[in-house]
Amino acid sequence: MAQSTIERLEAVIAERRKASADSSYVAKLTARGRQRIAQKIGEEAVETVIAAIQGDAKGVVGESADLIFHLLVLLADMGLGWSDVLAELDAREGTSGITEKLSRPQE
Amino acid sequence: MAQSTIERLEAVIAERRKASADSSYVAKLTARGRQRIAQKIGEEAVETVIAAIQGDAKGVVGESADLIFHLLVLLADMGLGWSDVLAELDAREGTSGITEKLSRPQE
Amino acid sequence: MAQSTIERLEAVIAERRKASADSSYVAKLTARGRQRIAQKIGEEAVETVIAAIQGDAKGVVGESADLIFHLLVLLADMGLGWSDVLAELDAREGTSGITEKLSRPQE
Amino acid sequence: MAQSTIERLEAVIAERRKASADSSYVAKLTARGRQRIAQKIGEEAVETVIAAIQGDAKGVVGESADLIFHLLVLLADMGLGWSDVLAELDAREGTSGITEKLSRPQE
Repeated sequence: MAQSTIERLEAVIAERRKASADSSYVAKLTARGRQRIAQKIGEEAVETVIAAIQGDAKGVVGESADLIFHLLVLLADMGLGWSDVLAELDAREGTSGITEKLSRPQE
Repeated sequence: MAQSTIERLEAVIAERRKASADSSYVAKLTARGRQRIAQKIGEEAVETVIAAIQGDAKGVVGESADLIFHLLVLLADMGLGWSDVLAELDAREGTSGITEKLSRPQE
Repeated sequence: MAQSTIERLEAVIAERRKASADSSYVAKLTARGRQRIAQKIGEEAVETVIAAIQGDAKGVVGESADLIFHLLVLLADMGLGWSDVLAELDAREGTSGITEKLSRPQE
Repeated sequence: MAQSTIERLEAVIAERRKASADSSYVAKLTARGRQRIAQKIGEEAVETVIAAIQGDAKGVVGESADLIFHLLVLLADMGLGWSDVLAELDAREGTSGITEKLSRPQE
C-alpha cells in the first residue's frame, strides 16, 4: 500500500533520530532535549499565527508544514505517533459533538 | 475509497462553517474572525508545549488533536486545505535534505 | 516614597493570593496551578503579537498590560518578584554589551 | 532624579534603533521588521512558560528579562513606551476591580 506523506515523514524521523547530531537536524534537535523540541512547536505556531494575520496563504502553508514536522518530532520523542492523534480526533468525532450533527441524516 | 480522519474532519468543518454561530463551535469561531482562530492555534500550541514538558503523553495527544483541529479551521478560513500542507511537506522531502538520506538506496 | 505602579500591583497580587478563589481572579488563577498561570502568559503574548502585526497600538498596550500582569502573578507564584527581573536586566546592561555602547562617553 | 532600569533600557533602545544593523542587535532586529520583533516576543514567552513548568526560578527570571526587553523593542517600534503600559495598568486598577478590594479600608 502506498505510504502517506505523514507516514513517510514519521519513518524518516524515526531513522534520523538514530543518526549523529552532526549529520541530521532531527538528531541534533533531539539531542538538545524535549524542551528544545517543544520550544520549536511554540515558535512555529507563532509564525503560523503571524502569517495568518497577514493573510499570507503561502506563509501559512509553509509555517503549518514546519509546525506539523516539529509536532511529529515531539510525538516520536515521547514514544507517540500521528496515529495516536488521529485516534483522538476519531474518538471525539463520535462523542464530543464536534461532528455529531453531520453524521445525522441531512434535514 | 475510505475517507481519512483528516479528510472527514475537513468535510465537517466545511459544513459547519455554513451553520449558525449558535449551533456550531466552528461557525462561532469563524464568525469571531481569523484573529480569533489564529489565537486558538497559539493557545493550543502552548498547551501542547506544557504537556510535553510535563512528560504527559495523554496530554500531548489531546492538545495535539486540538491544535490540528484548529489548524484545519484556519486553513479552511484561508481557502486552503490539509492537502496544501502535505504537498509542501512532500516538496521539501525532495529538496531540503530533511529526508534526502532515506530516499537513497539503503546502504 | 511613592510606590510605583508595578510595586502596587505586586502588593495587590500578594494580597489577592490569600483571598478565596471565589472573590478574586488572582486567587482563582493561582488555585488552578502554575500550569494555568504559565498558559495565560502564552495566551497574552500571542494576543500581543497579533495586535502588533495588525498595527493596533491600543491593542498592543492593552495586551502588554495583560502580559505584564500575568507575568507578575507567575513571579509571585514562584517566590520571585519584579525586582529580580530588573536585577537581571541591570546585570546584562553591564556585561552583555546590549547597552555597553551607550554607557561609554559619547564620542 | 535617578533613572529606573526600564527607563534606561528604553533610552538605550531608542539610541540603538538609529545605529547600523551591523553594530547593534536592536538595530538588526528592527531592520528585520515588526514581524520579527513580534516573533521574538512569542518565542521568549514560550521559553518563560517552559522554565515555569520546569520550576526553574533562574530560568524564569532570565526569560522574563528577555521577554521584557523585546516588549520594549516592540513598543519603541510602534511609537509607544513603557509608560503607556503603566498608564493602562493604573487605569485598570481604578476601574476593573482587580485591585479595588485592596484600596478599600481593610476590614
